[in-house]
Amino acid sequence: MYRTHTCDELRMENIGQEVTLSGWLQASRDFGGMTFIDLRDRYGITQLVFNMEDDQDLCAQARKLGREFVLRISGSVRERSNKNPNRSTGNVEIVVTEMEVLNASKTPPFTIADETDGGEDLRMKYRYLDLRRTPVQQNIIFRSKLALETRKYLSDQNFVEVETPFLIKSTPEGARDFVVPSRMNTGQFYALPQSPQTFKQILMVAGMDRYFQIVKCFRDEDLRADRQPEFTQIDCEMAFVTQEDILNTFEGLTKHLFKHTLDVELGDFPRMSYDEAMLRYGSDKPDLRFGMEFVELNDVAKEKGFSVFDNSELVVGICAEGQAESYSNKDIKKLTEWMQRPQIGAKGLVYVKVGADGIKSSVGKFFSEEQLQVWVEKFGAKPGDLLLVLSGEIDKTRKQLGELRLEMGRRMDLMKDGDFKPLWVLDFPLLEWDEDSNRFHAMHHPFTAPKKEDVDRMLNGDHETMKNLRADAYDLVLNGSEIGGGSIRIHDRDLQSRNFDLLGFTKEEAEAQFGFLMGAFEYGAPPHGGIAFGFDRLCAVMNGQSSIRDFIAFPKNNQGRDMMIDAPAPVAEEQLVELGIDLVKEVIE
Amino acid sequence: MYRTHTCDELRMENIGQEVTLSGWLQASRDFGGMTFIDLRDRYGITQLVFNMEDDQDLCAQARKLGREFVLRISGSVRERSNKNPNRSTGNVEIVVTEMEVLNASKTPPFTIADETDGGEDLRMKYRYLDLRRTPVQQNIIFRSKLALETRKYLSDQNFVEVETPFLIKSTPEGARDFVVPSRMNTGQFYALPQSPQTFKQILMVAGMDRYFQIVKCFRDEDLRADRQPEFTQIDCEMAFVTQEDILNTFEGLTKHLFKHTLDVELGDFPRMSYDEAMLRYGSDKPDLRFGMEFVELNDVAKEKGFSVFDNSELVVGICAEGQAESYSNKDIKKLTEWMQRPQIGAKGLVYVKVGADGIKSSVGKFFSEEQLQVWVEKFGAKPGDLLLVLSGEIDKTRKQLGELRLEMGRRMDLMKDGDFKPLWVLDFPLLEWDEDSNRFHAMHHPFTAPKKEDVDRMLNGDHETMKNLRADAYDLVLNGSEIGGGSIRIHDRDLQSRNFDLLGFTKEEAEAQFGFLMGAFEYGAPPHGGIAFGFDRLCAVMNGQSSIRDFIAFPKNNQGRDMMIDAPAPVAEEQLVELGIDLVKEVIE
Repeated sequence: MYRTHTCDELRMENIGQEVTLSGWLQASRDFGGMTFIDLRDRYGITQLVFNMEDDQDLCAQARKLGREFVLRISGSVRERSNKNPNRSTGNVEIVVTEMEVLNASKTPPFTIADETDGGEDLRMKYRYLDLRRTPVQQNIIFRSKLALETRKYLSDQNFVEVETPFLIKSTPEGARDFVVPSRMNTGQFYALPQSPQTFKQILMVAGMDRYFQIVKCFRDEDLRADRQPEFTQIDCEMAFVTQEDILNTFEGLTKHLFKHTLDVELGDFPRMSYDEAMLRYGSDKPDLRFGMEFVELNDVAKEKGFSVFDNSELVVGICAEGQAESYSNKDIKKLTEWMQRPQIGAKGLVYVKVGADGIKSSVGKFFSEEQLQVWVEKFGAKPGDLLLVLSGEIDKTRKQLGELRLEMGRRMDLMKDGDFKPLWVLDFPLLEWDEDSNRFHAMHHPFTAPKKEDVDRMLNGDHETMKNLRADAYDLVLNGSEIGGGSIRIHDRDLQSRNFDLLGFTKEEAEAQFGFLMGAFEYGAPPHGGIAFGFDRLCAVMNGQSSIRDFIAFPKNNQGRDMMIDAPAPVAEEQLVELGIDLVKEVIE
Repeated sequence: MYRTHTCDELRMENIGQEVTLSGWLQASRDFGGMTFIDLRDRYGITQLVFNMEDDQDLCAQARKLGREFVLRISGSVRERSNKNPNRSTGNVEIVVTEMEVLNASKTPPFTIADETDGGEDLRMKYRYLDLRRTPVQQNIIFRSKLALETRKYLSDQNFVEVETPFLIKSTPEGARDFVVPSRMNTGQFYALPQSPQTFKQILMVAGMDRYFQIVKCFRDEDLRADRQPEFTQIDCEMAFVTQEDILNTFEGLTKHLFKHTLDVELGDFPRMSYDEAMLRYGSDKPDLRFGMEFVELNDVAKEKGFSVFDNSELVVGICAEGQAESYSNKDIKKLTEWMQRPQIGAKGLVYVKVGADGIKSSVGKFFSEEQLQVWVEKFGAKPGDLLLVLSGEIDKTRKQLGELRLEMGRRMDLMKDGDFKPLWVLDFPLLEWDEDSNRFHAMHHPFTAPKKEDVDRMLNGDHETMKNLRADAYDLVLNGSEIGGGSIRIHDRDLQSRNFDLLGFTKEEAEAQFGFLMGAFEYGAPPHGGIAFGFDRLCAVMNGQSSIRDFIAFPKNNQGRDMMIDAPAPVAEEQLVELGIDLVKEVIE
């Protein structure tokens, strides 16, 4: 037997008991006659004592042990004279009478503590050591708990968890697929699913009524800072539901998860249309932890002789409360440069400082103090406030100002840890016109239904009409992150076929890729809709963290590599022969 | 709103209520003035009534509806005059006042009922219709419940569910990998995991202490009747445990699952060594729902002048109780031919019929009645019993007799539905000598530890010694199926390295494939062990079924094809170019 207790179990009431513990040597302290060892396992830390007077050999042996050695010890529990109130076991210690070194350890390449000195690459290569650090371990345990609570809640609501296949068919639409050559069907390939979308819809046609799955999905994309080639979704679908049913169900799930993992009670979630979110925050995923809403100035800023504004579709700004004094001309210049970086692309930035003794502005030459005073009133600004104003094309300008709003929120420390502001964003456009490729893209995905009142226009309308179709599509936004998104789906073959037409599929392409789904719609498909949560992101946002990597046990780096196992890697020539594939010459040479 | 109730909810106490239901038209019956429709959803069936007198148009409309049409109806609940006690809603019906056809349906290609006329291929192509059949739907729902109960139980025992990666590295050892070409690392490949074995061991090194995962695994094997290229495991690992800890934990899990899904109380599981199982049943997964144990006859059957026996290593038989009269000479001949098929490969079959008036046997010429009487006594046979005896090499003969025992068990209907006989089989050999390839194979897998008392022999012994090493490896057998298997693992670099040597790895191969694991063993790896359950098989065995396919929502056929979506399939040339691979010429032409 390796242990009678974990390293987080012993308390005052155990004093006098003979116990056995196993764990890792976290730290040791040598005080001449006595040696103390902190023994660590997943659950906690317990102090061990070795005494020269009691057992010289054992004490000498203990002194030789290094960090991360694995030990089994037996001894008796006694009260500590020098208690540690910060540790659950801090009132007791174990006087060790027997010890076995279960395994030795080389000196770890970085410190195994809450704060580590290990760089990203080193931590990834030695992920098994990184995972010993309490914060990372707690993240993984949190993730497990969140998954379990998700499953409990949805199962209680009659959802069935159904495993959909991983070896499916490539559909060049959307992101790039990972493909898997088939040996038994040489020259053919499976694809790994980007999501179980079509399968969950098939399950609705199959009468499963309520489906969910916590499932890995795959996208072969060039990895941005915080993307992973494999990621996890809470994937859900319901039949015989309206949008309202879905919002209520998953608002319920989200509240349950917060309550049962963080003990946070979320109130009812506000709702906002896509158009309103863009108008007020310049984003379809506004962070509502702070206000700083957009104020449009077209009526008071245009046609006053400032040609930049006059030639703009939109003049719009935000008010950074109390920031007037904090921003010198140099600071404003830096902020302007930050806005002019290609990632944001603003042409310039206009400021107005509201002072007790008057108004200062970079456009003071073009606007009188009275005119600027009208702006100040529109913003409801007070002395000490800083107005920041952009102008240009409507959509671009709103997005740029949305970025500025977030940056000012960060600088002003308005996104507080432990403050959770959920929001449903509704009524997304169905289709998005893409100037570059001169075609429509599905704003959500090709299976999203138009709103009922838009069906006729979609079936019969002209090209311009298509730009204004709205969908029963919804995103769940939390603190500025989209944590879930979904829609009511098309369940009618003709409407689905029309949508594929609009998206530029030929009849043959649509049939080859999604014929099975359109076929299924002919055999009594019920109305249905669903949602998918980004599980990695949800874990991170609930813990107030921005990176998903520390919530994934074995993440890949930006080159899609697993640094620990060193994958991907070349495979044996025989494997390729069996699969009927060759590496192209350029690669071999 | 699509429904106020499901089709399984309405009872006598709902009489008089106005309700709305949605579902599929299961059947309709037209009685002149009245039309009855059975409306079906996942939960049940409710009878609808349409009355010509009340609403002629509605009734006429209802008569036109075909099977599997999707309807939303509203109406009032009333008591049925002609109650159906076999249906939970059988006391009531709904007098329909409003109806909307939500979707039409073509006539399904097979009957959607408990027993269907659809062949395997048709059912797979239209899997969404097959899944509407109650038995298949219930299987999928059972699977979901079993997964949830597994998670609840293990989480209560402090296990953490950790998602291990799907894009890992190919290890040519073991079964064939599915590989995934990497676009970002051209010429290199990921592999899909055959199991998360190395990752779960890494998690133990990482201090996760107790890990589990219900996870898809992948093997690119030529598919036998009931294998799938992707299958699901309950995968578990524990640190600081002995074999005894693991057996107790997972016996607990298994009992919990039976109790909470089938309401079956399993007693404590018997245990048997591998050697004993082979000796008594000729199988390492004996079906204990019936006895028919092996009786060895070497001492009474050899050296009596029958050369076939005299030249055999082993003479061994079973007693089929009460079967003497049921087997004519012709029947015996057929049974002998069954045993001589290449799948079994017996040379012949000796019978002894115990009659009230004497003994008849195919070896009556070689043995006197007195000699055969000694056999009868060894078997404890009674008049009417049939003894079936094989001879030959020890291992082969036992396996052949094991097959015969199962066949007789089937014929005699000794494997009863609802009878569950679990068994732990212990003490498997560590290594298996393979004559064909002239090398050792790992009986369980290359990470399995020898028993403590065998470690020295393994490190220092000669070739012959290796054949007799035993492992702390165990299988959980249920009704003759292996539903789980595991072992205590090696956690020492030198011992792991020695095992790779014995298995024929060069140092370089071992390092390239498993260097990260051996490296991890140098940083304080704890003793650990685990188990994996075949989840698809467990579902089937718990439901007394032999095929796993009906417990998988979207299974593949024997050619590894998904018949519904028609995968695998060719991919676009551009995809291959991006991946830096080519189809070999023979395939293209």
